[in-house]
Amino acid sequence: MIFYNSFNRDCRDAAGAIVAGQTLTLRIQVTDLPVQNVAIEIFPDGEQATNTQRVRMQPQADNWYVGKVTPPSAGLYFYRFIVDTDPGQQAIYYAPKDKVYGGTGEATRDSNTSCYQLTVLSKEETLPDWYRNAIFYHIFVDRFNNGNADGHVNNPKPNSFIYGTHNDLPYYVKDANGQIVRWDFYGGNLLGIEQKLPYLQELGVTALFLSPIFAARSNHRYDTADYEKIDSMLGSLADFDHFLTAVHAAGMHVILDGVFNHVGADSKYFDLYHSFEPREGATDSPSSPYYDWFTFTQYPNKYDAWWGVGDLPTVNKDSESFHHYIADPKTGVVSYWTKRGVDGWRLDVADELRDGFIGQIRTAMDQYPDRVLIGEVWEDASNKIAYGNRHHYLEGGMLQAVMNYPLRNQLVALVNGQESVDDWVQAALTLQEHYPRSVFQNNFNNIGTHDTERILTALGGDTNKLALLVNIFFATPGVPCIYYGDEVGVTGGKDPDNRRFFPWGQGNKAVEAIYTDALQRRRTDPALANDASFIPFYGYRWGGIWRHIVDAQQHSHDALLVFNPNEIPILADIRQLHTDNLTLDQTAYLQQHIQTTPIPAYGYQWLPADMV
Amino acid sequence: MIFYNSFNRDCRDAAGAIVAGQTLTLRIQVTDLPVQNVAIEIFPDGEQATNTQRVRMQPQADNWYVGKVTPPSAGLYFYRFIVDTDPGQQAIYYAPKDKVYGGTGEATRDSNTSCYQLTVLSKEETLPDWYRNAIFYHIFVDRFNNGNADGHVNNPKPNSFIYGTHNDLPYYVKDANGQIVRWDFYGGNLLGIEQKLPYLQELGVTALFLSPIFAARSNHRYDTADYEKIDSMLGSLADFDHFLTAVHAAGMHVILDGVFNHVGADSKYFDLYHSFEPREGATDSPSSPYYDWFTFTQYPNKYDAWWGVGDLPTVNKDSESFHHYIADPKTGVVSYWTKRGVDGWRLDVADELRDGFIGQIRTAMDQYPDRVLIGEVWEDASNKIAYGNRHHYLEGGMLQAVMNYPLRNQLVALVNGQESVDDWVQAALTLQEHYPRSVFQNNFNNIGTHDTERILTALGGDTNKLALLVNIFFATPGVPCIYYGDEVGVTGGKDPDNRRFFPWGQGNKAVEAIYTDALQRRRTDPALANDASFIPFYGYRWGGIWRHIVDAQQHSHDALLVFNPNEIPILADIRQLHTDNLTLDQTAYLQQHIQTTPIPAYGYQWLPADMV
Repeated sequence: MIFYNSFNRDCRDAAGAIVAGQTLTLRIQVTDLPVQNVAIEIFPDGEQATNTQRVRMQPQADNWYVGKVTPPSAGLYFYRFIVDTDPGQQAIYYAPKDKVYGGTGEATRDSNTSCYQLTVLSKEETLPDWYRNAIFYHIFVDRFNNGNADGHVNNPKPNSFIYGTHNDLPYYVKDANGQIVRWDFYGGNLLGIEQKLPYLQELGVTALFLSPIFAARSNHRYDTADYEKIDSMLGSLADFDHFLTAVHAAGMHVILDGVFNHVGADSKYFDLYHSFEPREGATDSPSSPYYDWFTFTQYPNKYDAWWGVGDLPTVNKDSESFHHYIADPKTGVVSYWTKRGVDGWRLDVADELRDGFIGQIRTAMDQYPDRVLIGEVWEDASNKIAYGNRHHYLEGGMLQAVMNYPLRNQLVALVNGQESVDDWVQAALTLQEHYPRSVFQNNFNNIGTHDTERILTALGGDTNKLALLVNIFFATPGVPCIYYGDEVGVTGGKDPDNRRFFPWGQGNKAVEAIYTDALQRRRTDPALANDASFIPFYGYRWGGIWRHIVDAQQHSHDALLVFNPNEIPILADIRQLHTDNLTLDQTAYLQQHIQTTPIPAYGYQWLPADMV
Repeated sequence: MIFYNSFNRDCRDAAGAIVAGQTLTLRIQVTDLPVQNVAIEIFPDGEQATNTQRVRMQPQADNWYVGKVTPPSAGLYFYRFIVDTDPGQQAIYYAPKDKVYGGTGEATRDSNTSCYQLTVLSKEETLPDWYRNAIFYHIFVDRFNNGNADGHVNNPKPNSFIYGTHNDLPYYVKDANGQIVRWDFYGGNLLGIEQKLPYLQELGVTALFLSPIFAARSNHRYDTADYEKIDSMLGSLADFDHFLTAVHAAGMHVILDGVFNHVGADSKYFDLYHSFEPREGATDSPSSPYYDWFTFTQYPNKYDAWWGVGDLPTVNKDSESFHHYIADPKTGVVSYWTKRGVDGWRLDVADELRDGFIGQIRTAMDQYPDRVLIGEVWEDASNKIAYGNRHHYLEGGMLQAVMNYPLRNQLVALVNGQESVDDWVQAALTLQEHYPRSVFQNNFNNIGTHDTERILTALGGDTNKLALLVNIFFATPGVPCIYYGDEVGVTGGKDPDNRRFFPWGQGNKAVEAIYTDALQRRRTDPALANDASFIPFYGYRWGGIWRHIVDAQQHSHDALLVFNPNEIPILADIRQLHTDNLTLDQTAYLQQHIQTTPIPAYGYQWLPADMV
């Protein structure tokens, strides 16, 4: 028998990524086998055939073997174990099943196995305190609030529609070919957000993530027309400065959506409709200063566009001119707005940007203190391969966090009964294992964005499910980001239905109470801080999370959540507890305090758990 | 040879309809035939087989035969001539070719012929002076002017769109099945019209025809929600009263669009969406007071609707309850608004209303002096058969005029080269022959409405064609009605493109000059008054109109227009003149004054023609 569990600190002495040159100690137990030799096989990403190292493991008591690896440079490494038994027999491999998951693996004589991932950083990132302690609020700007007293919409765009009332449901105006022919607006603006800062503060929000605010044609503004201008529907540059001042005066922070993979067809850069003066867009003339930014297969009407959407011509990934325009430390767009007071950026479709470009953006931002750079990544960002290239944007000097869609997926699947509690634990701990500690603890967590169904809708409108999911969400490390309106029960399917206008004064009271309670707990319980340890565990159809921290005064704080993600009541039977890292004391405490009657369907309990 | 020309006063001694009991004298010339007997065959509409009268005609000098008919009652009569020649031979018939057209006919031994029409009235209508002398202006209310100083739209409707700018082109927001899912508004309102009264007066307009203004869901408001309410996007009842007062104070008049064939599905009467309180619409309950207004094939979701448009359930043609609601002299909708100061009504789809109902509406209106009732009819309204029934709404006590679409069709076809000058003359004189004099002289003339292409677009954007057409239009008897914006060159194809917002300050100067000149002439030349005689004539590819009147001081006034409706220059060669009714003096004058060099393409000339 062979035992190894990467989630267990007895087997792998560090929880997440390590820094290049740092040593990781691995331990494996091999019993009931005629062991000749036990070794770690480790190789850098993509070099299994050419550069696999064998690290012989030393035997210890109770059939344990120990070995150490010290990866010399940043990047991904992959490892498995090899056990030589009888001479002449095929060696036994111990490795994860199927996918790149942590935890226990399986023994096999087939040499073609998956491997455990070891993420190696060039350096450990530090993140600003304001960010690490933030409760974020994600605003789709057109849909939040119109600050004009008389309700007028600032500077409506030609060939657009304004909704008759704020209660109207979003609707794409498309022609028979499915092309959007008129963009639809409600008229939310910067002044509207500014006026709602007291509401947000009362809710417990400390930072804002705004959907794009630069000049653009659409309501989402991912089709930038001019990176140097605030969209006039949202306000003037002076309005923006006023807004920034108000945000900071409230002790809050704001990050912007940096959309640097594509621009709008109707932009000063591309100018497909020849609507900009001077006419110096790429389609105005091949001598345009922007001509080289784009790839024309047939000038000027056929060109590379994001997912084939003609409205969004993509910028050449290697355009130095564009990188300079965006990221030059002195004159670039990022520096311009960051210097003005923007506290950070979320990079749209970060997967589609070159790591080098992301590094340049980060360098430009690092001129200013306490900024943060976050990437849009939908999967495990530590090992993301996009367009044939492995990204290294989490390994130092680039992204400091990513949008945690995997967390959302886990939680929705868990509460909807599509994944089991053990799947959830494995997925959560795998992320912890793959990610730098700074990322896992401070990742940009969400349970819904402008690109997903509304969380209440994803849960079939069930507020019991929502209460459970929200409590697990806030019990998980990372920087929580609330999608505007989720906190008052806004529903809606996928785009555009997930972008309804905020129902001021018409919120769902039950949902408001869920968020108010959960946010109150998150803000006041020190054990829910991001650097508290995170120990998920599970039994038969029930689960739990233990958080633990010792504060600067050496006071210990614990938070303990136990829950039932089923549509039927379930007894949290302690005898079936599976845990990798709970201490004996913690297990005993749990045994002593856990409820002995069944937990109701979708029920959860916060147990008083401060173990002084 | 047989000669008869109903357009010629020597052959038919009255130009148009006659009143029941009045005598019409007909003369026909028969030469080179062994005449035994000449007779008029005349029969009431639909009674050819059973009730044909033969009126023997008396021989006169030069082979002329004269006969008189005195139809005893109102309605249509049809006549032809029969000439008996050799005994034993089939008689010869003289009748119009093919269609019911006036003018000359043809001789045939085939007894199956068309006939000439004789319209017989119960009485000759009189029309108010203000109407007879009016220059109307047709306003599609949502698209004319927003009177709010800050530009806000009054009370936008739920689930509607407001255009981003007034320059946006109209667009129907339809789903994949072609159903309109959101109505689109620019936000024109009553205050907006009121503010533009000075503009309209300066233009020469003296009366307004407004598209529907009662509460409704759509932008056109033909889907009435409540006949008793002004649509709140247009203003309040007080705003309407203020508007009426302002119109009358300016010496102007206003008629409304009476839409009494169908209502909106989303109305207090039908209430398909259960949005009205109290819930007493026909689809709310079969015990609804409005249940009998509609015809359900499957209650409540399948019902008779106008042209199958589910948004427009039709009202039962014989619903006494509905007729009472609309037309009761004391309590009816028509009386309510007429008493309030409305100067008249244009009945939407008059063809689809029972003549009796139209008579009731007229009776309600006749309680108030100087009102006018106009019907929407697209064809020759004197002989319109709709749904198997001949309409008699022009024969007295019902409609006083109809929308003159036949005139528009004639003029567009003439100027676009699709019909010849002789076709135009025949069509114009046929209308004159079929219609009551009061209708022909005071018909509600248009060259474009909300249901047609814009006139400039129908003419391919050619302002020379437009100038010609506008001059012929204003030289023709009838009450001219200008479709808002035509006078500044607004273009647009069919609905919705013909309903663009008025381009204030952005008009086409060339078109403005055309209208200004033509209106100036119309307003100041007494020979262009509606009761001046109308004599159209033509030569080879050229045409003309002579108007003549003798005023109260016995001064004679003449107006003479000669034109070339071709894309090449044409000499108006007097030797090819065809005329039915020009006098010898007039012909001589024409010969003397007509230009002896070719008229340019689409050129026209007003000749100085006062023949004292």
